[in-house]
Amino acid sequence: MTTALLTDRYELTMIDAAIRAGTHDRECVFEVFARRLPDGRRYGILAGTGRLLDLIADFRFGDAELDWLRDSHVVTAPTLDWLADYRFSGDIWGYREGEAYFPNSPLLVVQGSFAEAVVLETLTLSVLNYDSAVASAASRMVGVANGRPIAEMGSRRASERSGVAAARAAFIAGFGATSNLEAGRSWGIPTMGTAAHAFTLLHDTEEQAFLAQVDALGRSTTLLVDTYDVKAAVDLAVKVAGPSLGAVRIDSGDLPEQVQTVRRQLDGLGAPATKITVTSDLDEYTIAALRAAPVDSYGVGTSVVTGSGHPAAGFVYKLVARRDDSGTWVSVAKKSAAKATVGGRKLPVRERAGGIATSETIHVGEGAEPAPGARPLHVRLMTAGVPDDRYRGTTGTILAREHRAAAVAELPADALRLSRGEPAIPTIYVEA
Amino acid sequence: MTTALLTDRYELTMIDAAIRAGTHDRECVFEVFARRLPDGRRYGILAGTGRLLDLIADFRFGDAELDWLRDSHVVTAPTLDWLADYRFSGDIWGYREGEAYFPNSPLLVVQGSFAEAVVLETLTLSVLNYDSAVASAASRMVGVANGRPIAEMGSRRASERSGVAAARAAFIAGFGATSNLEAGRSWGIPTMGTAAHAFTLLHDTEEQAFLAQVDALGRSTTLLVDTYDVKAAVDLAVKVAGPSLGAVRIDSGDLPEQVQTVRRQLDGLGAPATKITVTSDLDEYTIAALRAAPVDSYGVGTSVVTGSGHPAAGFVYKLVARRDDSGTWVSVAKKSAAKATVGGRKLPVRERAGGIATSETIHVGEGAEPAPGARPLHVRLMTAGVPDDRYRGTTGTILAREHRAAAVAELPADALRLSRGEPAIPTIYVEA
Repeated sequence: MTTALLTDRYELTMIDAAIRAGTHDRECVFEVFARRLPDGRRYGILAGTGRLLDLIADFRFGDAELDWLRDSHVVTAPTLDWLADYRFSGDIWGYREGEAYFPNSPLLVVQGSFAEAVVLETLTLSVLNYDSAVASAASRMVGVANGRPIAEMGSRRASERSGVAAARAAFIAGFGATSNLEAGRSWGIPTMGTAAHAFTLLHDTEEQAFLAQVDALGRSTTLLVDTYDVKAAVDLAVKVAGPSLGAVRIDSGDLPEQVQTVRRQLDGLGAPATKITVTSDLDEYTIAALRAAPVDSYGVGTSVVTGSGHPAAGFVYKLVARRDDSGTWVSVAKKSAAKATVGGRKLPVRERAGGIATSETIHVGEGAEPAPGARPLHVRLMTAGVPDDRYRGTTGTILAREHRAAAVAELPADALRLSRGEPAIPTIYVEA
Repeated sequence: MTTALLTDRYELTMIDAAIRAGTHDRECVFEVFARRLPDGRRYGILAGTGRLLDLIADFRFGDAELDWLRDSHVVTAPTLDWLADYRFSGDIWGYREGEAYFPNSPLLVVQGSFAEAVVLETLTLSVLNYDSAVASAASRMVGVANGRPIAEMGSRRASERSGVAAARAAFIAGFGATSNLEAGRSWGIPTMGTAAHAFTLLHDTEEQAFLAQVDALGRSTTLLVDTYDVKAAVDLAVKVAGPSLGAVRIDSGDLPEQVQTVRRQLDGLGAPATKITVTSDLDEYTIAALRAAPVDSYGVGTSVVTGSGHPAAGFVYKLVARRDDSGTWVSVAKKSAAKATVGGRKLPVRERAGGIATSETIHVGEGAEPAPGARPLHVRLMTAGVPDDRYRGTTGTILAREHRAAAVAELPADALRLSRGEPAIPTIYVEA
């Protein structure tokens, strides 16, 4: 299905008016950034770039879309002709997917004609806002999980296609697996899951359910033990599967207490290798609270796919520079109080000392030159409309996951604290 | 693109184990409900049903999906054969789309074999959880807007496909239009929007931008007046478009104050018919705060597409009854503390007195008979796998919008209050 109409109407009416005024071809630079981090967060993680590159490359208005736009009188005939030929031919730079970001980090820079760049606003923001909200929340969870694996299982609490994007974003942020099969197929993410309470309730007894599951999925499976009585179910699970039972899953109750009890019970039953996975409405705070408990892995649903309280990253897509008629770049910026933008093209770097990030330094204007040693944050993602393959598909997803790990490792230790605080490093502007 | 893999892995592994155990064909009843309303909310609005009916009717495993499942060793050969033939053949009842709901309202009842019904869990919850989160938030906004129109413009703050679903859900809840073009095409929702700040910044002066816009879109257009100085822009807008200018849009600042000032200015310029629309990070609380201000219409983005603090409705999909081997229906329920379910098939009605709802009464068990006069809440949505056309497509969407208005009008006046409170009516169980 085409993505061309995943677009706000005003983008097309602006193009319509600009074509009529002869200004649509002015070369422009648009920038994606967040004015601030979500309340009290110390860093964000950029995600969605790899998905976005494909969506931009495929962004086309087909006959069906053009017919609908014509019949709905959204734009006039010259604009319909222009849209029929549309394919993005500009350049895009941006932070690498998985990169840590801060207020005003220029995460994506889109350079092209006004019309070809402005039409990408909604799609670009939709993808980056959602995926980054998920990755930012997921990264906080990974940060407090002390290396224990976390699986994403929140598809049911996200709109149906968002679930796939969420699985990918959480994987980039360090989750190890997802329950979502389409995310497995589309992005190569390991999938997991064995059974729900319904499976136990389907059978006449819990024992019949456990026998059926072990028969089909083997002794290494994970048995869900909280449909009726946890203690009785753990006894039964080991009786049915033996001490080589893979894991038991607990999906309710007072987890720190429950997990301790089940661990002792499993050890007492001679099943010290049987793992414990917990999945009950977890978020970064409950994961942190389980640090001392003998949990082996976590499954996280609602909180990760909804950004743990911040379901959109708050990115905006703003015109920051355009060429005037003489070909000179002019910085432009909205001046409204509280929503002012910094005009001009930006060259962002991460300054470091002893391998630890000390500031996000943004050099503004043409011809900026960062100090040597700082880590440049922009890579070229698209050249004349052609995406760089390194950042796409399953390869790009794995690269992003590795990059997120490296980028977070470079942050000051405070960055991983869950308590509300200031951004982990300051954002500093340097005028060229 | 197929929806078959928008499914959690455990649904397929449960089917695999049930096929092997010979239990997959047991006739089952699954129920969708919310254990509670979001914190302090007084009612919810069900949305997504119309979308879901089509998605269920089209739910198929094609060769590509089967190949991937085989190669990934998700299920065994007998299950692959079963999936290849899959099409839902059961019955579905549910609350009408647009209906008000309360804790434990049995919003959707899916009856079919265990395997054919359990495989729909993730897709069903994804659609209903997201769409209902949006509709529930949107309905609160409409409730405090005092009849002033509200447009949905939050696509950029929702994942790309979610934006379309959000536009539809908000429309059902009483919004009048959307910025999202695909929602216009797919669901017949009126679309709106004229220009962003980028359009003003593209041009050498604000006057050139306004001239270009009025030239292309006519004097009835809406001019955005807060790129530089609002007062100067309002003067300019009326100078350029004349007193028949359609509207000015304000997207920043201290709105109650700003709106009063702009209204006086427009009246003073002889443009009393020029409307004022505001769009700056609105939610139900800021809309309520603008009640006394001369606002003509609102545009709402982030808050509505993210459910205004509650981005998922919290619905679950639970097995509540199944036939035993003798053909008798058996109520089943999970017993875990805090997550216990009420087993059995439910017949929900809304009791009323003087036309005002007094309770959500849920008759439990086979053969329940509600008192006459109560409004039955279940309609049949799907029969032997075939959806009822009345609830689908643009017709179904408009019907849902009308139903939401009627359902909310029937609630006690307290229901529309924004302050935190208990559900507007109690949920009462009656055993048959």
